[in-house]
Amino acid sequence: MKLITVKNEQELSELTGELLIGWMLSKQTRFNLSITAGTTPEGVYRYLAPKIEKSRAFRHVHYYNFDEIPSTDPAFIGITMRDLNKLYFNPAKIDASQIHHLTSENYAEHDERLKQDGGLDAILLGIGQDSHYCGNLPGATQFEDQTVKVQATGALRTRISGHFDSPDLVPDHWVTMGPRSIMAARKLVLIALGSQKAEAIWHLVKGPVDSKYPASILKLHPDLTVIADEQAMKEVQ
Amino acid sequence: MKLITVKNEQELSELTGELLIGWMLSKQTRFNLSITAGTTPEGVYRYLAPKIEKSRAFRHVHYYNFDEIPSTDPAFIGITMRDLNKLYFNPAKIDASQIHHLTSENYAEHDERLKQDGGLDAILLGIGQDSHYCGNLPGATQFEDQTVKVQATGALRTRISGHFDSPDLVPDHWVTMGPRSIMAARKLVLIALGSQKAEAIWHLVKGPVDSKYPASILKLHPDLTVIADEQAMKEVQ
Amino acid sequence: MKLITVKNEQELSELTGELLIGWMLSKQTRFNLSITAGTTPEGVYRYLAPKIEKSRAFRHVHYYNFDEIPSTDPAFIGITMRDLNKLYFNPAKIDASQIHHLTSENYAEHDERLKQDGGLDAILLGIGQDSHYCGNLPGATQFEDQTVKVQATGALRTRISGHFDSPDLVPDHWVTMGPRSIMAARKLVLIALGSQKAEAIWHLVKGPVDSKYPASILKLHPDLTVIADEQAMKEVQ
Amino acid sequence: MKLITVKNEQELSELTGELLIGWMLSKQTRFNLSITAGTTPEGVYRYLAPKIEKSRAFRHVHYYNFDEIPSTDPAFIGITMRDLNKLYFNPAKIDASQIHHLTSENYAEHDERLKQDGGLDAILLGIGQDSHYCGNLPGATQFEDQTVKVQATGALRTRISGHFDSPDLVPDHWVTMGPRSIMAARKLVLIALGSQKAEAIWHLVKGPVDSKYPASILKLHPDLTVIADEQAMKEVQ
Repeated sequence: MKLITVKNEQELSELTGELLIGWMLSKQTRFNLSITAGTTPEGVYRYLAPKIEKSRAFRHVHYYNFDEIPSTDPAFIGITMRDLNKLYFNPAKIDASQIHHLTSENYAEHDERLKQDGGLDAILLGIGQDSHYCGNLPGATQFEDQTVKVQATGALRTRISGHFDSPDLVPDHWVTMGPRSIMAARKLVLIALGSQKAEAIWHLVKGPVDSKYPASILKLHPDLTVIADEQAMKEVQ
Repeated sequence: MKLITVKNEQELSELTGELLIGWMLSKQTRFNLSITAGTTPEGVYRYLAPKIEKSRAFRHVHYYNFDEIPSTDPAFIGITMRDLNKLYFNPAKIDASQIHHLTSENYAEHDERLKQDGGLDAILLGIGQDSHYCGNLPGATQFEDQTVKVQATGALRTRISGHFDSPDLVPDHWVTMGPRSIMAARKLVLIALGSQKAEAIWHLVKGPVDSKYPASILKLHPDLTVIADEQAMKEVQ
Repeated sequence: MKLITVKNEQELSELTGELLIGWMLSKQTRFNLSITAGTTPEGVYRYLAPKIEKSRAFRHVHYYNFDEIPSTDPAFIGITMRDLNKLYFNPAKIDASQIHHLTSENYAEHDERLKQDGGLDAILLGIGQDSHYCGNLPGATQFEDQTVKVQATGALRTRISGHFDSPDLVPDHWVTMGPRSIMAARKLVLIALGSQKAEAIWHLVKGPVDSKYPASILKLHPDLTVIADEQAMKEVQ
Repeated sequence: MKLITVKNEQELSELTGELLIGWMLSKQTRFNLSITAGTTPEGVYRYLAPKIEKSRAFRHVHYYNFDEIPSTDPAFIGITMRDLNKLYFNPAKIDASQIHHLTSENYAEHDERLKQDGGLDAILLGIGQDSHYCGNLPGATQFEDQTVKVQATGALRTRISGHFDSPDLVPDHWVTMGPRSIMAARKLVLIALGSQKAEAIWHLVKGPVDSKYPASILKLHPDLTVIADEQAMKEVQ
């Protein structure tokens, strides 16, 4: 595990963007990448998008979504895809052929598809205050899960309802790559900002492996890089 | 995870030996390897030793022990080193400069030393009926442990006492790379023979990640190969 | 460059077979390989074929021919494919979907196809007394050539005519991956037996880079392993 | 080979800097790097230096000089080291323990030292109008040369005399990693700016392998990235 402490969001955005550009350009053949939605990476994508958009050097990069929250409206594309389109795929003008949507329909074949396509080279992860990453909320998945459908009932349903304007739209499930699928990637990079993430970072870096803190398992990956500001790192330094 | 089913011990020994030779020869620079003692790999070392002994092509391979059980006799070299000397280091005539002993004295620096030396390229693991690997017996270590000293009291003391002719020799501790240190290696290969290992293999391949079954965590490594005979594989196929 | 000297053909066959098995098993995803026909590798394929045939562990290996000599008979499959079928593909029962034929029709797309498929992970090469490898005979290709069609006229036509029972069958061309395409593979392993190869091995290992000795360029590859017997190595040790 | 065309020096500097940062951060263990002096990379180092200086994330990067021009003054540190100190090592505050000077005294052990230290992970190269890179001027080295001492006589002496204020200071030799040593690195990235480099880029990308154009050999490396502006790329697109 490599810990990199940055001063602020701007430094995090630049360094993470630089790291991703360098990783993409480290392979002459197809590079398979998963990237996170959310607020922490917004600056990363603002940094990356114009650079990716203007260069043909990144046409070998394929993007695989690692989770998706649909709605009861079958015409809705999903929370993750909507957000990634807005944050990155649209401003970076990524060609549709390079984007691989994870959906309620194709999730069961996702791991095999990834294997056939050469496996994931890297994943950019965020982390929640509750230690979740991707759709791996506490209680939603188990460490041994590959890509799964999570039943959204009780507290889990409440957790995702904030994404929707109307309770009628809240779906009864979501899909996500589970811990086993995430750990199968060759490289992981996780970003965090702010003291409200400090406890989650402690569980990730120093805490016991405990399913109550989903990201606590990531410390076992042989190639994990954590980039966070001093506030988020304050419990581990 | 890659599962390879073989017919019998001879096939396992040959295939594992071939795999190790190929991996060693896949790097032009230093190759750092950990190998297991025990009965399962005996055939592997019989296969390997004469080939390694007669060739200068393997001088770049460095061996790092991943555990050690000392005795109360300070002159005793330790169970792991004694067994590896007999099984492999002596017949393969490995030069002392290529062998890195893990001891009660140096275990605390082991992870940093490995990192300075370039990290472990590969580990050859066995598995116990109780799902242990290296010195990671149920109850002895936690998933988040790096290289540690395990206090050998109660049932744990009983577990290692069989290695010694006299109860006076049984030590009050052993040292082992913990799950976190093992998972940090670039490649893992685990071998198993016989139906008495079938349940442990099930926990490894299909079972939940559960500290009662230490090897259940290994399923989360991005580059794990399991080689076992049909008896050991019978619950996972 | 790594030089490995073996005692005889049996040792060369075993070690090369072991190396290839280990390399194939070093990737969990698709492994792209090119292998040579000829007499030197006969023992390698006798060693490999039964092992590959009986295991499902090698289904991720794809074979790309690196040259082909057709005949004037359009129904003839080609010298390389005929020989590889006999030496390896048939006894190892390689599925047709894993074999990618290089032909007079598809050679111009060969490099792009390889790139799309992830690039060649490794090539097993032989070497001729004249320092040729693949279809790169002296005067046939230039160091900067990718996969090309070679016009078989004059001395070059004579060189291939020995493959045919009748002069009417000798084609007016062959196809081959040129030096630039061969050098683009991630790993090269080259095998040689006998004192008649000693001069070619000298040019490969120690001699100047000179197009009169096509294999002299291979010394510039960052991951080349040469396995040869003492007779073939006698000028370089 | 991967060709990346950028609009101007600023884009080249940023993209090359990003690439190097990403490559450095792609390894958790020691990363061995060679970097070029000259005017083309000035912007790259202005981009990199403050980022490298303020972060502890780059302490695993070791720098190996690939050439050196001494002077007749034994107290002089050498043209390459002087320039790299000014351009990068000083502003980036690289610790002396991470800098490995190539000198007239240690050049003969340079290749073996690199191998012992794990080999070069990457080299940042420039290119001259005469197609030279490092100290590989036309006529100075041969493609098969490892690290060598070049006798500076005749035209070669004239070529380096411009580095010195007084003819008395011009040395009778320089040292450089030769083509064989450069090609042994795992990754190469070469940068170029301006139409005066267009012909050299043509020889590199499309031209025949010819010792009159030293960089023409680089097209045979399996992992070469060329970053250049439109003027420098104008003959190859």
